[in-house]
Amino acid sequence: MDTMISTDPWAGAVQDIIAAGRRMDRFGWVPATAGNISRRLPDGRIAITRSGGHKGHLTADGVIEVTADGRAVRAGDRPSAETLLHCQVYEASPDVGAVLHGHSVASTVLSMMEQGDAILLSGYEVLKVFEGQQTHDTTVRLPVFDNDQDIARLSGVVAPYLGRMPAGYVIRGHGVYVWGGTMDVALARLEGLEFLLACELERRKVAR
Amino acid sequence: MDTMISTDPWAGAVQDIIAAGRRMDRFGWVPATAGNISRRLPDGRIAITRSGGHKGHLTADGVIEVTADGRAVRAGDRPSAETLLHCQVYEASPDVGAVLHGHSVASTVLSMMEQGDAILLSGYEVLKVFEGQQTHDTTVRLPVFDNDQDIARLSGVVAPYLGRMPAGYVIRGHGVYVWGGTMDVALARLEGLEFLLACELERRKVAR
Amino acid sequence: MDTMISTDPWAGAVQDIIAAGRRMDRFGWVPATAGNISRRLPDGRIAITRSGGHKGHLTADGVIEVTADGRAVRAGDRPSAETLLHCQVYEASPDVGAVLHGHSVASTVLSMMEQGDAILLSGYEVLKVFEGQQTHDTTVRLPVFDNDQDIARLSGVVAPYLGRMPAGYVIRGHGVYVWGGTMDVALARLEGLEFLLACELERRKVAR
Amino acid sequence: MDTMISTDPWAGAVQDIIAAGRRMDRFGWVPATAGNISRRLPDGRIAITRSGGHKGHLTADGVIEVTADGRAVRAGDRPSAETLLHCQVYEASPDVGAVLHGHSVASTVLSMMEQGDAILLSGYEVLKVFEGQQTHDTTVRLPVFDNDQDIARLSGVVAPYLGRMPAGYVIRGHGVYVWGGTMDVALARLEGLEFLLACELERRKVAR
Repeated sequence: MDTMISTDPWAGAVQDIIAAGRRMDRFGWVPATAGNISRRLPDGRIAITRSGGHKGHLTADGVIEVTADGRAVRAGDRPSAETLLHCQVYEASPDVGAVLHGHSVASTVLSMMEQGDAILLSGYEVLKVFEGQQTHDTTVRLPVFDNDQDIARLSGVVAPYLGRMPAGYVIRGHGVYVWGGTMDVALARLEGLEFLLACELERRKVAR
Repeated sequence: MDTMISTDPWAGAVQDIIAAGRRMDRFGWVPATAGNISRRLPDGRIAITRSGGHKGHLTADGVIEVTADGRAVRAGDRPSAETLLHCQVYEASPDVGAVLHGHSVASTVLSMMEQGDAILLSGYEVLKVFEGQQTHDTTVRLPVFDNDQDIARLSGVVAPYLGRMPAGYVIRGHGVYVWGGTMDVALARLEGLEFLLACELERRKVAR
Repeated sequence: MDTMISTDPWAGAVQDIIAAGRRMDRFGWVPATAGNISRRLPDGRIAITRSGGHKGHLTADGVIEVTADGRAVRAGDRPSAETLLHCQVYEASPDVGAVLHGHSVASTVLSMMEQGDAILLSGYEVLKVFEGQQTHDTTVRLPVFDNDQDIARLSGVVAPYLGRMPAGYVIRGHGVYVWGGTMDVALARLEGLEFLLACELERRKVAR
Repeated sequence: MDTMISTDPWAGAVQDIIAAGRRMDRFGWVPATAGNISRRLPDGRIAITRSGGHKGHLTADGVIEVTADGRAVRAGDRPSAETLLHCQVYEASPDVGAVLHGHSVASTVLSMMEQGDAILLSGYEVLKVFEGQQTHDTTVRLPVFDNDQDIARLSGVVAPYLGRMPAGYVIRGHGVYVWGGTMDVALARLEGLEFLLACELERRKVAR
C-alpha cells in the first residue's frame, strides 16, 4: 500500500490500518461501520480500529491502543467487542503482525448457506497465497463458526483451531478473519480468500 | 465523509449532500438523474437536492431550501416531487437530520419479485446497523410499498409506518428510503441495507 | 460531467466526449477499443471518436470531424464504420446533440438470449428518464436489431424506427445506441438504460 | 494508458508495466500477489514483474530483466516461475511486445467448469479485438490447459498451440495469458477476453 515512510512505529501502524481500510472499502468489504483492522508493533503494542465509524474513511483518531487482553490503554477509548478475536490471534502466534476482519457479500452468503462447519476450497491456483500451500492440487478447509454476540464465548470456540487455519476463518452471516506477518501479507490473504469465495459463489449459481 | 469543516450550517449541509451523492454514485445507487438527498439543519431549515441533475456530480447550486411541507423557499427553485417523502420523515421524528433515497439494482429487483408487503432480513450481523438492533439473531421487516406517481397519496400510505421502520422502506421497482440523526448515520444505514439486499439477491440465485 | 468551460464550441464538444468516455469506462461499457461517442455542434459540425483506441483514455486527438453523411473532413482521419449510425440519428432529429454507443455485459447477454425483436421494459421508476415517459406504469420497447458488419445495410434496417425508440436500441451481441439533446441527457439515458438492463438480467437469474 | 513519455526504452517498459498492473487491479484481475506482466524492448531485453508483490501497487523496483530463456540478468533478482510462459510467447513471435497474465473470477470459474479442452466464443462483436478477426459471425477457440506447478512441463504442453491462439489461452483454475505487439494492444485483448468470459458466465446462469 502507498503508505508514507515513518520512523515512528505507532504512526506506521496507523498508516497501515488507514490504507487497509481504504482498500477494503474499495471492494465493498467494510459496509456501514462493519469490519475492524489491527496491527501489532515490534514492541508488542496493539493498534486497532475504534468501535463504530466507517473503516473506509479512517483518520489517526480512529485507531486506538489496546492491551494484549483487549482493554483500552487510554481511559475513554472504546474498543470494539471483537477486539478479543484479534488479541487471541496475536497471542497464539508471535509471528502475526496484522489481523483483518471484513464483511463481504460472498462470505456472508456462503457461510449462511453452508450447513456444515467449513467451506472447502479445492483446485485453485490462488490457494498458494495461504500459509504453507505449495500447489493448487489440494483442499484448504475454511472453518465456519456460528455467530455469537458474546465475543468471549465465541473466542473460546475459535481458540482450539488457532494454528491450523491457513486461510483464516468465517463467522456465519458475519464475515472473515485473516492475518499475516505484515499488513501486506494479511491483505494479500484477504484478497486471495475473497477471490476464492467469489469464485465459489459463482460456481454455485451455475454448476447444477 | 471527507467534508471540509464549515462554520456556516447551510454550507455544511450542502457539503454533506454533495459528498453523499458522490458516495452513492460510486456504488451505482443514483443512475441517470435518480435519487434525492436531504439534510435538516439545527434551526429546522431543510436542504434537498433540486429536481433533475445527476446526484453524483452535484454542486452547491444543485441543493435548494424547502419548507417543512416541501415547498421551495426561493421563487423559481423546483423541488423534486419526492420532497414530500423526505419532509414526512423529518416531521415524524425530531431526531432525524438526514434522509437518503437511492435506486439500486438489488432493491429494484427484490421489490419487484416480492409478492408480499415486506422483505424480511434475518440472521445477519449487519442488522445491528439499524436503530435499536442489538443482535444478528432477529428479523427486521423492510416494508415494500407499491410505487405511485401521486407522491401525496404515496406519502399517505407510508405515514402510518413511520416510527416503526428501523431499516427504512422500499418503493416497489423504485428504490429505498433511509434516514438517521446525522448524514454519517444515514449513509451507514444505507450501506448496511444495500449490503443486506445484495446478500438476499445472491441467496435467491443459489439457494433453491 | 466536470468539463471545463470553453468558449470554443469544438473544444467544448471534445471535452464532453472525453468525459463521457471516462464515465463509460468506469462502468465497463467500453472494453478494449469498443464503443463510440459523438456530439453535434450548434453549427452542424459533428465531432466523433476516431476508429480504434480506448474510449476511457481519450485525448483531443482521438476526436475527429465528420460530415453529415459520415466522411472525414480532414484527409487522413479514419472514422469508425459505425459513424453512419450516429449520423442517421442526427439526420432524423434536429434536436439531438449527442449519441453514445457502448458495449455492456448486460446488453450483450440479454440481446443474445432474446429470440424476438425487442426487449420489453415494464414497471420501473427509472423508465421516466426516457423521452416522453411520465410514469413507471408503462412498457417501453427496446428494439433488438441483428448485428451486421455491413453498417450501411444495418443503418437501413434501423432507419424506419428512428423517432419511435425512446430508450434507444440494441444491436444483438454488440451493444446499445442512445442519444439526447445534450451530452448530459444522453449519458443519463445511457445510465438509465444500463440500470434497467442490469435489473432485467438479475431478474432472469432468479425469477423462474 | 497515461504513461509519461520517456526516451529511455527500459523506463518506458517499466511505466507500461506499472500502468497495466494498476488497470488490471481496477478490474480485480490481480488479487493478492497473482498475475504477472512483461514487455519486450526493441533491443530484445525482457522486462517482467518480480515474483511476489501486488501487481496493482508496482514500483520500478518490482520490474526485473530476464534473458530470453527466463533467467534473471541481475544476480539476486527472483523471477516468477511463470516467466517461462512469457518467454515462450516472445520466442514464438518476433512481433509480440507485451504479455499479460491475470486471474479473474470469470476465467477461473469457467475453466474449472469446462470439461473439454477449450471455451468457444461465438457471435460477439467484441471478438473483432482478437488478431485476424473481421466479423462477429465466427467462433474463436480459447484453449484451456490443465494447471501444473511444473511450469517447464506446462510450457511444453502450451508450445504446440502458439501461433494459433488469437484470443490467448486459459490455465484451468488459474487464469488467462494474452499478448500483443504493444502493451495497449495486449491490454485491449485482455479487456476484450475478460468481457467475453464475463458474458459467457452470465449466460450460463440464465440460459437453461
